[in-house]
Amino acid sequence: MALVLTFLGKGGVGRTTVAIAAAKKLAQAGQRVLVLGQDPSLAWQWGATLSETAQGVEANIDGLLLSSTHLLERGWEKLKEVEAQYLRSPALKNIYGEELGVLPGMDEVLVLNALREYELSGRYDVLIYDGPGNLSTLRMLGIPEIASWYWRRFQKVLADSEVVQTLSPFVQPVASAVLSVNWSPDQMLNHPDGPQNLLQQGKTAIADPSRFAAYLVTSTDTLAQKTAQSYWGGAQQVGITVKGVIQTPLGNGSVDASLFNPLTVAALPTYSQGNWQPLMDALPNPQAMGSAPRPLEIDVNARQVKIFLPGFDKRQVKLTQSGPELTIEAGDQRRNIDLPGNLRGKAVAGAKFQGGYLIVSF
Amino acid sequence: MALVLTFLGKGGVGRTTVAIAAAKKLAQAGQRVLVLGQDPSLAWQWGATLSETAQGVEANIDGLLLSSTHLLERGWEKLKEVEAQYLRSPALKNIYGEELGVLPGMDEVLVLNALREYELSGRYDVLIYDGPGNLSTLRMLGIPEIASWYWRRFQKVLADSEVVQTLSPFVQPVASAVLSVNWSPDQMLNHPDGPQNLLQQGKTAIADPSRFAAYLVTSTDTLAQKTAQSYWGGAQQVGITVKGVIQTPLGNGSVDASLFNPLTVAALPTYSQGNWQPLMDALPNPQAMGSAPRPLEIDVNARQVKIFLPGFDKRQVKLTQSGPELTIEAGDQRRNIDLPGNLRGKAVAGAKFQGGYLIVSF
Repeated sequence: MALVLTFLGKGGVGRTTVAIAAAKKLAQAGQRVLVLGQDPSLAWQWGATLSETAQGVEANIDGLLLSSTHLLERGWEKLKEVEAQYLRSPALKNIYGEELGVLPGMDEVLVLNALREYELSGRYDVLIYDGPGNLSTLRMLGIPEIASWYWRRFQKVLADSEVVQTLSPFVQPVASAVLSVNWSPDQMLNHPDGPQNLLQQGKTAIADPSRFAAYLVTSTDTLAQKTAQSYWGGAQQVGITVKGVIQTPLGNGSVDASLFNPLTVAALPTYSQGNWQPLMDALPNPQAMGSAPRPLEIDVNARQVKIFLPGFDKRQVKLTQSGPELTIEAGDQRRNIDLPGNLRGKAVAGAKFQGGYLIVSF
Repeated sequence: MALVLTFLGKGGVGRTTVAIAAAKKLAQAGQRVLVLGQDPSLAWQWGATLSETAQGVEANIDGLLLSSTHLLERGWEKLKEVEAQYLRSPALKNIYGEELGVLPGMDEVLVLNALREYELSGRYDVLIYDGPGNLSTLRMLGIPEIASWYWRRFQKVLADSEVVQTLSPFVQPVASAVLSVNWSPDQMLNHPDGPQNLLQQGKTAIADPSRFAAYLVTSTDTLAQKTAQSYWGGAQQVGITVKGVIQTPLGNGSVDASLFNPLTVAALPTYSQGNWQPLMDALPNPQAMGSAPRPLEIDVNARQVKIFLPGFDKRQVKLTQSGPELTIEAGDQRRNIDLPGNLRGKAVAGAKFQGGYLIVSF
């Protein structure tokens, strides 16, 4: 299993420089590293020629520039293959992958899937994702959890719906007359490579700090620090463990460590052209586990759910309860928690903030 | 009609500062301005308290912080109302807007729709959108054009598909037994407020430089300049007119104007706390039309399509032709051009780059 590492922070603080230095540090320690991003400035900053295929850039380091148009094209060809297996006269075969434009949301789905494939390839010990590092990265990492929720919630509603109930006795026999194989929707949806399993695997990987971790990157600028702190809270909402803070040497003074307590702040020296070693030395080891708080703890006996939400206060957080689910809204993100056995259906008795944790009692 | 203005450029170059200065300049000239963004740093930088409702911040200037969770909630309630009109027993009524998480792509759709609503409100002369200013903003502005393409292309394929043809004689009568009104999919889809019309209106607005314009913002840093140049090309791919370049006073020297020819580069002085007037004076007037090249010109008589694609060369651009459509791929974006009458179905005879234009001959 590879560790996927990413860096969150305000634009311009030097996240790409940090990503490259981290790759070099890990490679020097003998790890096989892949650095990947979508923005061409990764290649410009690295001084490397990158394409959409992974290629060696330095000893132990491969690099690549993700291209949504090409990932979409590849995905489309696979979809056409699946369709051709099930339909006697496939309808999609006349639409070509080369024509497909990229709509919002596709980048995130395609990139997350590419990360999954490179992680599974077994060719790397660490993947460093140099993404936008903002809310858009958090949305991407939230896909498995949020999409599973939509799945779970809408499946039930649709199954109960009058339209679906009235139509299904007609649709199934007619459909099987057109399809080239015996096929049921359940069969496809519950396939090991089907959406449900992929989402579950994604949730497990993202919540595991030995497989997925982030660092906050900030300069000493006040806005950059506030932004990094807000992404720290945002990362908890998608279940990512933030392992530490990296201070880049832009501006004077130093980062206010109390904003990021209990994380450690590592201050990087100024980068001078080509001299990476001082930066590499100053970086923490991303493979060490550290003592970063876990995003979510459920204590069934104490009837408590503890959600780590640094940087938020009670007024900025909203709780909603619907059936067995608890929804937490904070900082333009929502997280649905499917409560375990004996908390299901119990009403929230109280909620308070304590040491950065939102503690919900039932 | 309001002018929607946005700023494209690398993170950290000072786009938000420029957005605020532009708002102040327009307000001083008597224009009613709304500044809106999704990132809380807009409020921090402005020193204003912003919420998801537009509120006066300065004379002639309202501000607001877009919240996807709340826009989604509002949209969901509207969708439930529509469903309740058509279905005897609505299925969605048991899912509450407060539960819905935000998936990638939703931000862009919701923000674009909010821009449309504020533009239509007639309350403002200028909307200043302080968005991420990167590929994600370009994807958002590409929605009307790209979604119309998917619509057009898939509608035909589905209508021809064996599954749909076999099912439709069954689905329609059964569905009308469940629905509470006489209803056909065509009726809903071609409704004046339906998706087809909205997309068409969006395409028209975005392609009109008196209604939608962007500026590139860059510091004198080489990477920032290259990034701005690549977004200039990217803006053409979504049909946005870029009116000029704004140089922020970070770093030494000045921007290489040849990268942005024929645009004018306006150099801003350093911002010192609270003293906006020098910045306002140095900014160009966003309501002036200038001489910015139009993204697309089709000359039916000369059998030529001219696409302005600054910053790209022939090797970075790929053309694909499928039926009446021409697809242009450049910089991880694709644009489908529906060729007019006498160019439809004609094969591309040649393509060359000249003065920043890709000229395709038929």
